[in-house]
Amino acid sequence: MRHLDLNGLGEIKLIELLTREIVPYPDNVIRGIGDDAAVLKAEGEDWLLFTTDMLIEDVHFSMAFVKPAQVGAKAMVASVSDIAAMGGRPLHAVVSLGIPLKFSAEVLQGIYSGLRNAAIEYSLNIVGGDTVKSPGKLIINVALIGSVGAGKAVYRSGAKPGDLVFVTGSLGNSAAGLFLYQNPGTRVSTEAGSFLKSAHTEPKARVKLGALLAGTGMVTSMDDISDGLATEIHEICLASGVGCRIRSPLVPQDQRLKEAAAAAKRDPLNWALYGGEDFELVFTVRRDSAAAIKRLLNEEGEKCHLIGEIVQPKAGITMELPQGYFVPLEAKGYDHFKTRND
Amino acid sequence: MRHLDLNGLGEIKLIELLTREIVPYPDNVIRGIGDDAAVLKAEGEDWLLFTTDMLIEDVHFSMAFVKPAQVGAKAMVASVSDIAAMGGRPLHAVVSLGIPLKFSAEVLQGIYSGLRNAAIEYSLNIVGGDTVKSPGKLIINVALIGSVGAGKAVYRSGAKPGDLVFVTGSLGNSAAGLFLYQNPGTRVSTEAGSFLKSAHTEPKARVKLGALLAGTGMVTSMDDISDGLATEIHEICLASGVGCRIRSPLVPQDQRLKEAAAAAKRDPLNWALYGGEDFELVFTVRRDSAAAIKRLLNEEGEKCHLIGEIVQPKAGITMELPQGYFVPLEAKGYDHFKTRND
Repeated sequence: MRHLDLNGLGEIKLIELLTREIVPYPDNVIRGIGDDAAVLKAEGEDWLLFTTDMLIEDVHFSMAFVKPAQVGAKAMVASVSDIAAMGGRPLHAVVSLGIPLKFSAEVLQGIYSGLRNAAIEYSLNIVGGDTVKSPGKLIINVALIGSVGAGKAVYRSGAKPGDLVFVTGSLGNSAAGLFLYQNPGTRVSTEAGSFLKSAHTEPKARVKLGALLAGTGMVTSMDDISDGLATEIHEICLASGVGCRIRSPLVPQDQRLKEAAAAAKRDPLNWALYGGEDFELVFTVRRDSAAAIKRLLNEEGEKCHLIGEIVQPKAGITMELPQGYFVPLEAKGYDHFKTRND
Repeated sequence: MRHLDLNGLGEIKLIELLTREIVPYPDNVIRGIGDDAAVLKAEGEDWLLFTTDMLIEDVHFSMAFVKPAQVGAKAMVASVSDIAAMGGRPLHAVVSLGIPLKFSAEVLQGIYSGLRNAAIEYSLNIVGGDTVKSPGKLIINVALIGSVGAGKAVYRSGAKPGDLVFVTGSLGNSAAGLFLYQNPGTRVSTEAGSFLKSAHTEPKARVKLGALLAGTGMVTSMDDISDGLATEIHEICLASGVGCRIRSPLVPQDQRLKEAAAAAKRDPLNWALYGGEDFELVFTVRRDSAAAIKRLLNEEGEKCHLIGEIVQPKAGITMELPQGYFVPLEAKGYDHFKTRND
């Protein structure tokens, strides 16, 4: 029997293969598969958002580094971040847990307290769940309903040539934190180690920032950086039918990331481009709206960084290096079907 | 470190332990954790239902007996059945798949075609998903939104002493079918073998029947029989604060189930009480509504069977045997944390 090489295939193609969407009742479906969350018409003023995320121990997280409560919270954050990427706010979650029989009650209570704390932090209700035994690893699935004003959802597919590309925050910190956990001999300052490790263990979803950006009506596309900046840019370009040119010196890197990279003899840009789970936002705006967006974010005490621009599709997806020449920006990076941090 | 004996604990207690619900915004939550689906206020005339179910290979199904397309369909049916048990209709699903790397493309396509066929059969949309690699077994999580008329949802908690207890269809067929797969030497007629095996591999959710029953306004409690009749009766009694007395000769058993039980030297009642995944409905009605309900179902070509009555809580949960004496009806039966078919 022919076997699919899932390692070689990667998640995007597999999803394409499997999830040609089934929508017998299209009237209420504004957007189905292919964005961070589905967008559904409801009876009132708002649209519903609907998303699901499955996290498996030793694929998406290691309990050697991440405490049970942090695992629970990260699972919730991954789904909340999908809602943030649409410009929405989370409302109600249902949580399925596949639990290895060897787990202690303390570990389970830790996981659940993490889910609960994240629910409170993001002002959402946990209204249901399923608990089953897992013959293997811990599995957490969070499905989440959110809402967004009708017509206000921001998709991956609206980027146009000439638009400018921005990201929030700084990138690669979660990947660097994981590296430090995996390589405890790396000599970094306490300050840098603690910052990067907590970026890995306690990431935050940018709900307010996503809603603020969507509310401007000036954001043409948006994605959350769950799988690495390069992957998300590829997703936006694929969905929008455009190319993109980013400038590597503009990709925001925290000083503590650079410190860890120097100690580890790694390229910090690699973490910033391909590290997953920062849960920052990447978005595009029309060139003439950029100043207004930056001003608005400043007023709210938030920051965004210009990293490049959207170009014609035939120009491809490229990165300008400091030396001034261009290289293709590969989509590789964090991919659920590949080894992380390769 | 103290380890939780999940095998001994069982799912109900574990859910209690873990899922004290978190509802910071209770205004829109009619019913949270503790029923087949959460019930949520929406802006229009209907309430939203929200449920999630996780199925794991070799815990909930065996790919040795169940084809990939049947696995996909069963996963969808399990969630649809939760919506049916509330009297609602399914609207939109999101599906997470944890896929072992060794799976072939054909197996994946089979699973997805089963999900798709079930979506069409139950008139719902698949609007999103997540696909991740699983280091162990196949994992399928279906989260489902449904709707029910405001005030029309039927809970587990409304049964009152004096109410009569009914079930739809006949019970135990799925468990008997699994037995036949596991014991291929059992000598039964082709007709019985085929009927029971397909009850196991291709179960149906009772959406129309659930909505019909809820629509009467006369059903005081309802549950779907996913984990075995005895377990579901315990859930209703626990949620309603009542006892129950069922009469064993009234528990409906198909002639083909009896034939297989005779061939297997098993008690068919055991399958009917403790076999899971029949996805029939168990419900209670006030004594004075029973005739009207039976008439209505007859008019629709559907059948239900009186199996007992709700009693005072202090009378406990008992079963009257043909000999006329009463025994406690144990909740045991299909339990995700116990061995199936014990």
